Amino acid sequence: MSADRIHSTYRIETAHPLEEAAAVMAGEQSSGTFIAVPGETDALRERFGARIESIHEEDRVDAPSLPGSRQPAGRSLRRALVTLSFPVDNIGPSLPNLMTMVAGNLFELSPFSGMRLLDIELPDSFAREFPGPAFGISGTRKLAGVSDRPILGTIVKPSVGLSPDETASLARTLAEAGLDFIKDDELIANPPYSPLKERVRCVMRILRDHADRTGKLVMYAFNITDEPDAMLRHHDTVREAGGSCVMVSMISAGLSAVAHLRRHASLPIHGHRNGWGMLARHPLAGMEYAAFQKLFRLAGADHFHVNGLRNKFCEEDASVIRSAQTCLQPFAGTPPVMPVFSSGQSASQAPDTYAALQSVDLMYICGGGILGHPDGVAAGVQSLREAWEAAVAGVPLETYARERPALARALQTFQRT
Amino acid sequence: MSADRIHSTYRIETAHPLEEAAAVMAGEQSSGTFIAVPGETDALRERFGARIESIHEEDRVDAPSLPGSRQPAGRSLRRALVTLSFPVDNIGPSLPNLMTMVAGNLFELSPFSGMRLLDIELPDSFAREFPGPAFGISGTRKLAGVSDRPILGTIVKPSVGLSPDETASLARTLAEAGLDFIKDDELIANPPYSPLKERVRCVMRILRDHADRTGKLVMYAFNITDEPDAMLRHHDTVREAGGSCVMVSMISAGLSAVAHLRRHASLPIHGHRNGWGMLARHPLAGMEYAAFQKLFRLAGADHFHVNGLRNKFCEEDASVIRSAQTCLQPFAGTPPVMPVFSSGQSASQAPDTYAALQSVDLMYICGGGILGHPDGVAAGVQSLREAWEAAVAGVPLETYARERPALARALQTFQRT
Repeated sequence: MSADRIHSTYRIETAHPLEEAAAVMAGEQSSGTFIAVPGETDALRERFGARIESIHEEDRVDAPSLPGSRQPAGRSLRRALVTLSFPVDNIGPSLPNLMTMVAGNLFELSPFSGMRLLDIELPDSFAREFPGPAFGISGTRKLAGVSDRPILGTIVKPSVGLSPDETASLARTLAEAGLDFIKDDELIANPPYSPLKERVRCVMRILRDHADRTGKLVMYAFNITDEPDAMLRHHDTVREAGGSCVMVSMISAGLSAVAHLRRHASLPIHGHRNGWGMLARHPLAGMEYAAFQKLFRLAGADHFHVNGLRNKFCEEDASVIRSAQTCLQPFAGTPPVMPVFSSGQSASQAPDTYAALQSVDLMYICGGGILGHPDGVAAGVQSLREAWEAAVAGVPLETYARERPALARALQTFQRT
Repeated sequence: MSADRIHSTYRIETAHPLEEAAAVMAGEQSSGTFIAVPGETDALRERFGARIESIHEEDRVDAPSLPGSRQPAGRSLRRALVTLSFPVDNIGPSLPNLMTMVAGNLFELSPFSGMRLLDIELPDSFAREFPGPAFGISGTRKLAGVSDRPILGTIVKPSVGLSPDETASLARTLAEAGLDFIKDDELIANPPYSPLKERVRCVMRILRDHADRTGKLVMYAFNITDEPDAMLRHHDTVREAGGSCVMVSMISAGLSAVAHLRRHASLPIHGHRNGWGMLARHPLAGMEYAAFQKLFRLAGADHFHVNGLRNKFCEEDASVIRSAQTCLQPFAGTPPVMPVFSSGQSASQAPDTYAALQSVDLMYICGGGILGHPDGVAAGVQSLREAWEAAVAGVPLETYARERPALARALQTFQRT
């Protein structure tokens, strides 16, 4: 990595010569190489121009992946990986302007019938200018009191409609069942029927009492998504009530609002990615989670939703694992962050998740996989602990379940292969 | 419009029965109708559940538009418009949470091989809780001193690399040529080579001098995109130097950061949409500009980039016009906002733009269409004024150009049909 350049890698699809296509991208996002403008000197281009660092051709396709492009007729469409680099001084240390540079006006360029931002790399010295995660994996583990296995959690359901007292009552049941982590649904933040302040008061009274009795403070991620200054107030409400986590809908709040919160916060930020489908659903448009996660890691989120294996949504398992791996990797001097597995998760996915990730540094969030256990919530939690013990020990779940009824019943109930 | 419900309309593609598919969307985004959960009572569903307001079947297609869905085999895929409604009290008056409700986790639902948010409608009483545009069309016209024609403008180029003095020198040329409006490129905000404070000082000295001589203060949209509180400081820098506009990269900064700025601002907010291709490039994914524009109008942006007719990007003219029309329409009691036409614009697109829009309430931004005029920048500006006069009068450009050399030369140089 050059000490003073930002790298961004894209998958493109074009019928134009690849060198030409990449040069259009570089020009559009820096000094406009291909349209002569008064004042655009060679010296200016040399200092500020984006460079094409590499082009790797991939496969060829017959039909354009996205409509609207203008391509030379009669040529086949080629896909390729293109890496550009930009001088850090083109933007200076500003997160939204970093995003504009690597993920701005280039997705609509007419020579392309596909373009997706795959990844970014930054010099450590540049990344140090951004807040970054304050807790990451190690800080979260310390607060949650869980050291050698995944942090096991669930989501309060129904998503909307429960009063603060009803939420607290459910939190009591979940805490007593032995869960490490509980989170609000992304659809409840600060509505009239459950004002955040009131919900925090009711829930934290229960969880603090539970901690006094057991020594374990269950981590509850209160959804504080709101305008920037309101998030700071909500954060303080949670902190003053003795809470240990806040949750933010990253896309809805926005990159710079997360950074604003992080500069003020003293609690881990649980990053929910609702809306992600808009950015990622088409494989030749938008961006990969690697790039997204890095931008929001720089902003300071500590936990990142990554979906889960055999999930209820459209995402393939390979993509889920790629997302989780990128969370666990170091990035420009920032600490690794917690991938959060959820959606249709139960005991049955633990071995494959561990096999793919070779790590227990994750949050494992189950709804039905805990609440739907036929022997109750505590048995649901027990089945998850046992499933992860088996996964780490390399023992098949069925074998491990022989002497363990909670796991055995979970496998009967939730098996998803 | 019901006084207490939010409406959102989607285009979907699915092989499932349409009623069932719409019910999955409604359930996912509210009380989770289709997965029984303890505590989910009929009363809760009645009060908080999303309703299906309408379903209109459109065409059928053979192949799924997006990969990853789980669809019943052997059935054709149907496209349909689906309108849902949600109680305003599910979220309360919070802009990012409104976004999570109408554009959150539903785009990845597995029964769908296509889903795009097309539009939203809100009760006026609910919209009044958000900042909304402070200037809109009428306030912008007053500040720019342009009443009966489009506001004519250009972008400082090269996009990156000019020093504050070089920018100011270019601004002098553009102001003397008679332009109403100048904007920074989205790639320059507050970089080390042109700190915003210094650029504002240099440019505003020139523009204020010009105003003292001519009575006309050219509106310059300084790009203040940054973290939330930094944007407030940058705004004040512009205001204190006598500037009359600030620009924000809406997607990079984020919805809530724009609202944060608006609550503090006393200058119009010029909304740049770089990154829009990520949200919109595939016609069955992401969102339409109508919905995007309404969310950011509620946040308080006054001007909205909409691309332009016969533009250099992938967007069709019909889509550009739809975007502009939605800016000009009233929305939930908020004032109409300025559509900003740009990208490959010159005198030649004026008649078609006017014919489609039946309005001169727009900003018309030309780069090459002004700077590339063979008789100089002033002739470029003159050609645009003449083209718009002809458009409004219903006189063909060629006819109008007979006695008007600036327009005639522009048509020879820039004709794009």
